[in-house]
Amino acid sequence: MKIAILTIGNELTGGRIQDANAALIARTAKARGWQVPVMMSVGDRAEAIGGALKHVLSLADAVIVTGGLGPTADDITTAAVAQAFGLDLFTDEAVLAHVRGIFEKYRLKWTENNAKQAVFPAGAEVIPNPTGTAAGFAVRTDGKIVAVIPGVPAEVQRMLPEGVLPLLAKAFPGSDPFVRSRTLKAFGLSEAAVDQALADLDFAARGVDVGFYPNFPENHIALTVRHERKEEADNLLEAATRDVESRLARHIFARDDETLEGVAGALLAEQNKTIAVAESCTGGLIADRLTDVPGSSVYFERGLVTYSNVAKRDLLDVPDDILLRHGAVSEETARLMAEGVRRISGTDLGLASTGIAGPTGGTEDKPVGTVFIALADGRETLCRRYGFRWTRRRNKVMTAQTALILLLRYLKGEPDDA
Amino acid sequence: MKIAILTIGNELTGGRIQDANAALIARTAKARGWQVPVMMSVGDRAEAIGGALKHVLSLADAVIVTGGLGPTADDITTAAVAQAFGLDLFTDEAVLAHVRGIFEKYRLKWTENNAKQAVFPAGAEVIPNPTGTAAGFAVRTDGKIVAVIPGVPAEVQRMLPEGVLPLLAKAFPGSDPFVRSRTLKAFGLSEAAVDQALADLDFAARGVDVGFYPNFPENHIALTVRHERKEEADNLLEAATRDVESRLARHIFARDDETLEGVAGALLAEQNKTIAVAESCTGGLIADRLTDVPGSSVYFERGLVTYSNVAKRDLLDVPDDILLRHGAVSEETARLMAEGVRRISGTDLGLASTGIAGPTGGTEDKPVGTVFIALADGRETLCRRYGFRWTRRRNKVMTAQTALILLLRYLKGEPDDA
Repeated sequence: MKIAILTIGNELTGGRIQDANAALIARTAKARGWQVPVMMSVGDRAEAIGGALKHVLSLADAVIVTGGLGPTADDITTAAVAQAFGLDLFTDEAVLAHVRGIFEKYRLKWTENNAKQAVFPAGAEVIPNPTGTAAGFAVRTDGKIVAVIPGVPAEVQRMLPEGVLPLLAKAFPGSDPFVRSRTLKAFGLSEAAVDQALADLDFAARGVDVGFYPNFPENHIALTVRHERKEEADNLLEAATRDVESRLARHIFARDDETLEGVAGALLAEQNKTIAVAESCTGGLIADRLTDVPGSSVYFERGLVTYSNVAKRDLLDVPDDILLRHGAVSEETARLMAEGVRRISGTDLGLASTGIAGPTGGTEDKPVGTVFIALADGRETLCRRYGFRWTRRRNKVMTAQTALILLLRYLKGEPDDA
Repeated sequence: MKIAILTIGNELTGGRIQDANAALIARTAKARGWQVPVMMSVGDRAEAIGGALKHVLSLADAVIVTGGLGPTADDITTAAVAQAFGLDLFTDEAVLAHVRGIFEKYRLKWTENNAKQAVFPAGAEVIPNPTGTAAGFAVRTDGKIVAVIPGVPAEVQRMLPEGVLPLLAKAFPGSDPFVRSRTLKAFGLSEAAVDQALADLDFAARGVDVGFYPNFPENHIALTVRHERKEEADNLLEAATRDVESRLARHIFARDDETLEGVAGALLAEQNKTIAVAESCTGGLIADRLTDVPGSSVYFERGLVTYSNVAKRDLLDVPDDILLRHGAVSEETARLMAEGVRRISGTDLGLASTGIAGPTGGTEDKPVGTVFIALADGRETLCRRYGFRWTRRRNKVMTAQTALILLLRYLKGEPDDA
């Protein structure tokens, strides 16, 4: 089944708001196994609404329309729908009594324009509004359905599942497939490299839809499958997941709503390990991410943002002569920071970053984006040098992400060759 | 002039993301005085793209298209545009060399699918991409213009004003008025309260367009004016700015691209003051924001994320009996944290946060969201208690914002009655 979406309002065509309703309806349709061939938005003008309705109905079995059902002068959707399909308008007395009842219950002052909310095109089926005064409606035209609800997001969230979906499912019974989807989160591969690594899996032929979503500094891979049989849909998704995971291997660090800090944190908790962090160029971002995880106080002991050389010396015992000879941005300093924060915190692990976030401060040997990340566990200290080429903020984000990936691989016992 | 918007991508018709690009383009068009008769989204299918292009061009003088210009198999917009208008494709060698150059510069591995990003429909004018590899292009058809750019929001934000708008303005010369705009950033007022405070200024009658953009935890107020005479446009904007600033007074903390941490940091530098931060519930976020500002090492000395009680005692000299008697989340602890971090760091100011970010850990006296923020300057220590009611992440964000506002008001010598 194909569902078009038409959202109406000058706030959309004027760019005042992002279209949350269209995204919600599209997501809901996809989850039902319905296709969305087109989404459209027009302003509050009858001619534009009529033209849009006719265009989208040429591409779909039904259209879900939001917006323009309120009491004010710019709410013209009902009239525009009636005009587009040559229908008369009538007042539904039951709905009118219901709207008046709401005004009485909340002791609101009745104004005559509110009666507009009880007017519908001839033949319309009313879609009740459990949270507001503006009811929705559906009309049939040429075997297709136009379902109209208000544009208030909270009302859409109720009326879509409670009113519109049952109505559409009843009108087009039968063939909805089971839909399963999964997002795999990757780091350290470009979008093109991910694409290339998966190219010969020929997901299209297997009925697997693959989407790539760059989400700096991560790349997310969304797999979606549809099948008439639930078990088969599950199997298809599992097979596709295994294929992607085996191709991208350790570049995949999380699934769906999992985060990097959440996965690493769960391993710390599971392995009964504690951690402390010493940050220079990331300025607290590693600690911020680690502490975004509920319950992180179990394993996160402290973080030190040692921005000045004095702080590196006083808090972490990095000797002045190391800072002088090798510089604050050096492998030697990074190692001593990781070892120092581990020692003074009494934790199992110490994680450290030092680098030049930019935009200034680079030298020929160490240009902006030069970063050292170190991880100490008391037996040995791992240290890696990186050269990032981004803005200041992105260099910080990239460094924090890389540090957490280093930690994750350590906890998983994976070789580190990032 | 009428501009249609066509955004392309399965992530849109699948409801995976809200369409930020369409809203940005609509807002930008409105600011130029252009109308947007229709906005449309279709998935990555050539037939759907062709049909959508023809429909929207029947309603507008030009269409701005985003999405589907990358290197991967699902990026088919260029081919679809060429097919829709019967144009051949060609490889632009200069663009190809540029894309290859980016790969060399960043030492990325070249894969052949990237060459796709140098392919354009015959007769296309290339629109350079200053931040990515996928260039845009524009083609003329029947006196109308199809301008295509990538869908990555950061790239749209650059290519729209730098590439697309000048191209459209040149193609349709004439009547564009001078447009001036300004964003004022407010904190501590709801959208409804901002709206109410400005209601009687009657901006519409004065030719001033006002947009409200909630940007958690900030509210942004965008003023836009248009006038045939440049000077008059400037005067209108200045007058509107003064009106908003006088009504919202100290709730306004920044303009346009300024950030809270940038404004506070500039004052620290100007006043020759240094600062150190001690964070518990914000977990490093205050330090992260302060160090986002280039040159912040001049005034930011260190940050301590004292998550455990041991860290609060060892690093900040918060006595055990205070922690036991009043708890880690208390006015007493917050004060001692701010004073402690200032003293041990030798800075002019010490800023501290302690609270219960959630989702667990609340008590009857101190429910989730209870936060104490303290600022010490060696003479006195300011401390405030707050009760936030958000998710864990939003409680952290709200606390960091409130701490930086407290710092800003202190530096400005404004009374603190937040």
